[in-house]
Amino acid sequence: MTSAALAQTIADVVVGNHILARQGVVDGFGHISSRHPEDPGKYLLSCSRAPELVSADDIMVFDLDSNPVNGDARNPYLERFIHGEIYRVRPDVQAIVHSHSPSVIPFAASSARLKPIYHMSGFLTGETHVFDMRHRFGCTDMLVRNRDHGAALAAELGQKGVVLMRGHGFVACGPSIPVAVYRAIYTEKNADLQQRAITLGGDVTYLDDEEARLTEATNRGVVARPWELWKRQVQQG
Amino acid sequence: MTSAALAQTIADVVVGNHILARQGVVDGFGHISSRHPEDPGKYLLSCSRAPELVSADDIMVFDLDSNPVNGDARNPYLERFIHGEIYRVRPDVQAIVHSHSPSVIPFAASSARLKPIYHMSGFLTGETHVFDMRHRFGCTDMLVRNRDHGAALAAELGQKGVVLMRGHGFVACGPSIPVAVYRAIYTEKNADLQQRAITLGGDVTYLDDEEARLTEATNRGVVARPWELWKRQVQQG
Amino acid sequence: MTSAALAQTIADVVVGNHILARQGVVDGFGHISSRHPEDPGKYLLSCSRAPELVSADDIMVFDLDSNPVNGDARNPYLERFIHGEIYRVRPDVQAIVHSHSPSVIPFAASSARLKPIYHMSGFLTGETHVFDMRHRFGCTDMLVRNRDHGAALAAELGQKGVVLMRGHGFVACGPSIPVAVYRAIYTEKNADLQQRAITLGGDVTYLDDEEARLTEATNRGVVARPWELWKRQVQQG
Amino acid sequence: MTSAALAQTIADVVVGNHILARQGVVDGFGHISSRHPEDPGKYLLSCSRAPELVSADDIMVFDLDSNPVNGDARNPYLERFIHGEIYRVRPDVQAIVHSHSPSVIPFAASSARLKPIYHMSGFLTGETHVFDMRHRFGCTDMLVRNRDHGAALAAELGQKGVVLMRGHGFVACGPSIPVAVYRAIYTEKNADLQQRAITLGGDVTYLDDEEARLTEATNRGVVARPWELWKRQVQQG
Repeated sequence: MTSAALAQTIADVVVGNHILARQGVVDGFGHISSRHPEDPGKYLLSCSRAPELVSADDIMVFDLDSNPVNGDARNPYLERFIHGEIYRVRPDVQAIVHSHSPSVIPFAASSARLKPIYHMSGFLTGETHVFDMRHRFGCTDMLVRNRDHGAALAAELGQKGVVLMRGHGFVACGPSIPVAVYRAIYTEKNADLQQRAITLGGDVTYLDDEEARLTEATNRGVVARPWELWKRQVQQG
Repeated sequence: MTSAALAQTIADVVVGNHILARQGVVDGFGHISSRHPEDPGKYLLSCSRAPELVSADDIMVFDLDSNPVNGDARNPYLERFIHGEIYRVRPDVQAIVHSHSPSVIPFAASSARLKPIYHMSGFLTGETHVFDMRHRFGCTDMLVRNRDHGAALAAELGQKGVVLMRGHGFVACGPSIPVAVYRAIYTEKNADLQQRAITLGGDVTYLDDEEARLTEATNRGVVARPWELWKRQVQQG
Repeated sequence: MTSAALAQTIADVVVGNHILARQGVVDGFGHISSRHPEDPGKYLLSCSRAPELVSADDIMVFDLDSNPVNGDARNPYLERFIHGEIYRVRPDVQAIVHSHSPSVIPFAASSARLKPIYHMSGFLTGETHVFDMRHRFGCTDMLVRNRDHGAALAAELGQKGVVLMRGHGFVACGPSIPVAVYRAIYTEKNADLQQRAITLGGDVTYLDDEEARLTEATNRGVVARPWELWKRQVQQG
Repeated sequence: MTSAALAQTIADVVVGNHILARQGVVDGFGHISSRHPEDPGKYLLSCSRAPELVSADDIMVFDLDSNPVNGDARNPYLERFIHGEIYRVRPDVQAIVHSHSPSVIPFAASSARLKPIYHMSGFLTGETHVFDMRHRFGCTDMLVRNRDHGAALAAELGQKGVVLMRGHGFVACGPSIPVAVYRAIYTEKNADLQQRAITLGGDVTYLDDEEARLTEATNRGVVARPWELWKRQVQQG
């Protein structure tokens, strides 16, 4: 039987999928998961489906080895190991987004580093790392297809909220579904704004590390405001 | 009891919120206020809510110290001091917009200066100043959280219609709600157009100060035309 | 009494307004006119209204001095002289669009010249001229407010289909309403594409003048196809 | 009588038209064809109509010389020879898209070469060729108007999935309608992302040829996921 807490988390994962689609952070690809609210050794993630089309019935349960539990035989995302391996080493993380959003890909391919350009993205404190699978695994199809790939990605992420993936996309995580969604959306926005700032040709001033830390603390306190808006927008269709 | 004048101003603040959201000048964050039509020592501003969702019931009344009047205990915007301190020193100002709109942030982070690139934004006459809180207040969470912050911002604004805020956004103000909304929208547009012009690599000719002054006078006379369009667009949903 | 030919032209001017709004070529400002189908010494243009909101009842008739006929006392566009003075010197022109569209403004401010980057915009053959009012009229509010302004603009246009206006926008004209609308839309598109091509940093190859001439002849023959699409899109709302 | 296989292919050509329009890959111009499912010496292509407006009744049948069969006298696309000549020399190709999409045109005009910037566009392995009609045919109206033009284009395409056309657009092809549509959409996306990466000013790392080959194989296996989304989006209007 599904508890109220689990039903609520599943509903939030579904709405998180729809929000990310509407905000242009995911298209036919990309996914969002939540740690299981009653078992930190499990996580919730849709079967292989475009985020805009995900409904509650699509949500599967995986253990941290990224095996489906209860013999669920539906087709999972190939890259579910992103989720399992980050949950394994980051007990603070409750939700994870994987995306190929358009403003972030250029930074994932460039030697230019993504940095926080305004107070909305203080979670990008310091330079954001870029995970390059080729350094350790040679030429691949770029997908995080197994536990080794996932563990290497989690190591590059470290204790941060975001890591880029060369030639692929990025991962954002956080202590709740709204915060992980917020970070995914504002990683995309920050990348867009930073690219525009660079093309102005002047000197660009990024947030100081201390400013970034302070804004991040403030933003966690107001995340309910955009979350309410984003939910309303997807519920109105 | 609410007078007809007050009811009309509240309605205009609400529609101003919706227009700014539809035009992409505000998202989950940002706000618009009006000076109280019957008491220049007070102003009208929504409680803490995403602009797209603001309705007449959300509008609170504040004194110029940015304290809510009538014991209104709802949650106010943290940055209401932007409004109170500008109304205090600028008796000509009847409406104020605060925004993080996407084309303006790059100029708020860059040494490149925002300048009027066409006749629609003559109100940007001369170079637009950039307020940097760090110069006076050190590292903060970048928010205008108290009267001192607000007064410093108002001083940087001076007698102009727009001031940028480093790592944060901008403020536009004007002698009426339609003019403040117009200036916020065309600040965003001008920033976008200027960024594109810079990337063409040629020499860019901005409006001469006298041209800017003359276009600004003309535009105030025709602001009813776009205002009618913007209202119609948000009323049709 | 309105003849069938006049009623059809008025309907096409209205739908032209709506198409230009939907395509992002005009917003609260900008206008489209047609030469009167039964009197080449007159033209049809809306009263001062945002193009998206124009209906058949808004269409006024002007003589080539840009005075309203039949004592029509409604508020006209300030810049109607653009239309009257071009119709006066260009008997081949049957329709005119004035716009501030976003990709064109940067070229109207830059020393970089707009050139045809693909076969859709062969009408931009050769370099497109930029009309700068300041050279002849000194500092103004940039508007084409009288017959002298309009005549100077028409002289800069010469025998071409498009002329840019420094710090302001552009004018596109053609032998029919669909062709003028087509040219306005593809002037905007070409400017956008050329700006992107420039930022790639390589050498850009524009259409040869002879290629431009040949594509222009072809495109006039297929303009009914996009016109049908654009009409359908605005009629479906 | 129309067989079930043919009816299904016609339905997929129609939905492919609508998907490409909704994704911004075609506007009033551009087209998609399929090889005839029961006769490899014929192909299916709409009569001359904007893709968004194409319905099943518009689909014509052509032989590989690009002559309509069964005496169909409707107005065909001038550039149908793109399709016939590629089907002739590429038996592996089952579907072809021709487009003027906005991010690709700049690469079709520039000496900068389009390359795969992420795993979604591994089909762009190696540098993408640019077909320039002028080298062989001198100044033309840039259209692929006859068999000689089409054969020259097919030769420039070679065994690849995409070829650009200088001053014009591009062609994407594939072993099925969903794959050809996927390649057209991700050619547009890759061009956009590569342009942004270039403007960041750092070094850009593109996919290694072996990475591109491996991602291409993977992507063919998951194309049903975005195809399901794209179909749903156009069916909901």
